[in-house]
Amino acid sequence: MLDVCLLGTAGMMPLPHRHLTALMTRYNGSNLLIDCGEGTQVAIKKKGWSVHSIDTICFTHYHADHISGLPGLLLSMGNADRTKPLLLVGPKGLCKVVEALRIIAPELPFAIQYHELKEEVEVVESQGYRITAFKVKHNVVCYGYTIDILRAGKFSVENANKHEIPQRCWNRLQKGETVEMDGKVYTPDMVMGAPRRGIKVTYCTDSRPLEIIAKQAYKADLFVCEGMYAEKEKLAKARQYKHMTFYEAAGLAAQAKPKQLWLTHFSPSLVRAESYMDEVRGIFADSHLGKDGKSIELSFAEEE
Amino acid sequence: MLDVCLLGTAGMMPLPHRHLTALMTRYNGSNLLIDCGEGTQVAIKKKGWSVHSIDTICFTHYHADHISGLPGLLLSMGNADRTKPLLLVGPKGLCKVVEALRIIAPELPFAIQYHELKEEVEVVESQGYRITAFKVKHNVVCYGYTIDILRAGKFSVENANKHEIPQRCWNRLQKGETVEMDGKVYTPDMVMGAPRRGIKVTYCTDSRPLEIIAKQAYKADLFVCEGMYAEKEKLAKARQYKHMTFYEAAGLAAQAKPKQLWLTHFSPSLVRAESYMDEVRGIFADSHLGKDGKSIELSFAEEE
Repeated sequence: MLDVCLLGTAGMMPLPHRHLTALMTRYNGSNLLIDCGEGTQVAIKKKGWSVHSIDTICFTHYHADHISGLPGLLLSMGNADRTKPLLLVGPKGLCKVVEALRIIAPELPFAIQYHELKEEVEVVESQGYRITAFKVKHNVVCYGYTIDILRAGKFSVENANKHEIPQRCWNRLQKGETVEMDGKVYTPDMVMGAPRRGIKVTYCTDSRPLEIIAKQAYKADLFVCEGMYAEKEKLAKARQYKHMTFYEAAGLAAQAKPKQLWLTHFSPSLVRAESYMDEVRGIFADSHLGKDGKSIELSFAEEE
Repeated sequence: MLDVCLLGTAGMMPLPHRHLTALMTRYNGSNLLIDCGEGTQVAIKKKGWSVHSIDTICFTHYHADHISGLPGLLLSMGNADRTKPLLLVGPKGLCKVVEALRIIAPELPFAIQYHELKEEVEVVESQGYRITAFKVKHNVVCYGYTIDILRAGKFSVENANKHEIPQRCWNRLQKGETVEMDGKVYTPDMVMGAPRRGIKVTYCTDSRPLEIIAKQAYKADLFVCEGMYAEKEKLAKARQYKHMTFYEAAGLAAQAKPKQLWLTHFSPSLVRAESYMDEVRGIFADSHLGKDGKSIELSFAEEE
């Protein structure tokens, strides 16, 4: 139901075999992208996913490795004949930064809509995605994102019959509409059970560990989190540059209890990343190293 | 003496296995780059060449596929501890475009110097490179570049002795200095022969064929020229979008007589490029398809 792809795993700068960190999702014909560094459009094409259907792009912050690929992506979307408006979401300054970058992509066949984040936690709805932006702690204003695909409760035929609701109203009630018919008013709560568990992905890069991150990632189907440094002795560096070590990310996962943790946003100096994973899994068992192009298909839970 | 690398061969947009067109040269410890689209820094790293020593970047024009990689490259150069100033050369608007893009690369440990081209043909000297910019014909102002490594004439011991020039002046005369010693003035022309043939590379993308291009590439050691389209029926498209076909590029080479022609800046739609090359070589025998990372070491001609 929700396809998720980690397009790249590099932090700071792109490398020959490591694209910059970005996440893409596909749901119901609408694609969503979080961050767009130099080369993200290439990573999308490598994966075989479409740039045309990206309706929403969320930015964590405006360091170049998270946004430098935007002008090229916009042009490629234009060349793919996109005409639908594109929604951009990001911290304050979004419009100013994007308009400056557009000096090299001035003419596009689609409109750009801006949603600048102001609150500590802010919810944006777009194309069936519920996007929750939450402020994290980097050396500039930076947000993490939770992407929820909500799932309504189950329709109860029993209750519909109990309330004597005509069958021709059922579909509209199921869609959440209130229906007036033959002088009677029917509301969705008459027939719909409590909302069921949906699908949840939480994404956080460029931050020190914070309570809010664990809270946001609580029981997520997937928690994608930065692990800039694997070497223990780089904890001081992580503190200085406001990043996380593998162990700190796993510590957040241990609190959040997601189904799995994918580490990403690796320092260019990181090699033999797998050699650190035994210890990481000791902190949170379902920890995985991110890989460029790693993807997963997340479905609604089976009915009980 | 002069290493030349065609970093990429794509036009318009980067593809998974085709970097955007850019040319890099290495001479005497100083690197020069022409154009810098999205991913050019990755192509440089793939080749194993250094971003640190890039002292000069020339831009043909400011379409995104020729400059979108600049902010990332500047940051990577800064991360590689560059402190020497960097010279940027390009058409009018250079400073405005680069300063706009630097919204995501505001702090650099080195200065940027701008040289904006105003004339039809303009010569810029940088780090031992003689750079000749020449205006070509695209749908925006666009320049081609000739890179010359000049070579002085031969020192004549016979003439030095004839003019009774003390040996301790020879080295300075050879460097082109005028020397005053013991009341006498010695000038380089007393001992130096006529300038010898140097090394010459001419680079042109994003233009219709023009007389000036053939003139600039005249007897170059290497002529790198765009060939956006290989299919004959795309000539109309080439005319419309101000590009060249393979055959037009080869036609310029036939006039210019360089040692070899490398075609580049291929349309994303181009496949089976080699299948067109027999006909191209019928127009100019030493025609070659550019390949990402294709490089050559050009030396001064052997002494006769």
